[in-house]
Amino acid sequence: MKLLNLDHVAVAVVDLDAAIAGYRKRYGVEPLHREVVESQGVEEAMIPVGGSYIQLLRPLGDDTPVGRFLAGKGEGLHHVAYAVPDLDSALAHLEEQGAALIDREARVGGRGARIAFVHPRDLTGTLIELVELTADGRPVS
Amino acid sequence: MKLLNLDHVAVAVVDLDAAIAGYRKRYGVEPLHREVVESQGVEEAMIPVGGSYIQLLRPLGDDTPVGRFLAGKGEGLHHVAYAVPDLDSALAHLEEQGAALIDREARVGGRGARIAFVHPRDLTGTLIELVELTADGRPVS
Repeated sequence: MKLLNLDHVAVAVVDLDAAIAGYRKRYGVEPLHREVVESQGVEEAMIPVGGSYIQLLRPLGDDTPVGRFLAGKGEGLHHVAYAVPDLDSALAHLEEQGAALIDREARVGGRGARIAFVHPRDLTGTLIELVELTADGRPVS
Repeated sequence: MKLLNLDHVAVAVVDLDAAIAGYRKRYGVEPLHREVVESQGVEEAMIPVGGSYIQLLRPLGDDTPVGRFLAGKGEGLHHVAYAVPDLDSALAHLEEQGAALIDREARVGGRGARIAFVHPRDLTGTLIELVELTADGRPVS
């Protein structure tokens, strides 16, 4: 198991345009990429900061994971994603340890990347995403 | 205003040794730095991941910001910190905009760095820390 980088920190928001405008005004940052990821029930905007991203997540409906998060907790930090060079071997390592995996196999997330989530109950109450990246930081799809 | 990097994502934990052991076992990562920061009421461990850190925060007592966070929400993501090249000018920019600053002037945080916090109510429910770093990524004290 090797973590290459802190790929992104994800923030659940109610209004994606307002959130993007807020980050632009306060911190002078701008999304590089924006897309609807139907399989995760979100529209996401990826704002580059150094070698990482701020990921803003707007739920596509109330009955989605991010919609339920917003209803329960309001806007705020949702998960953190680490880049790994080989997601299948990372998942095998975690499964061998009995980690509380949400995804036992890779699925496709934003940017067409192979991703998997580990449940917050596994470690420090933190929803962790692993995303497979190439050595030069591009998503593997 | 310019954000150089995502410096760290901070996680509030009850047991710092257990959390460090958990990150070691699950993700093969190791703290580079550990210290008590009395002024913030925490013991912190900084785990490098690429050019960023996972910061694990254990409160020194129940009546501290992180102690109250744990009592209310349990373990989990606490704040995100961005590196800036000039904290005083960043704070002047935010104050000019009427941002909800927790610190109107820089104070000294972990690693002896000059830091300041922006209240979660300011933007997307997210507690944001700004930390002044040199061009080669060292804290400015």
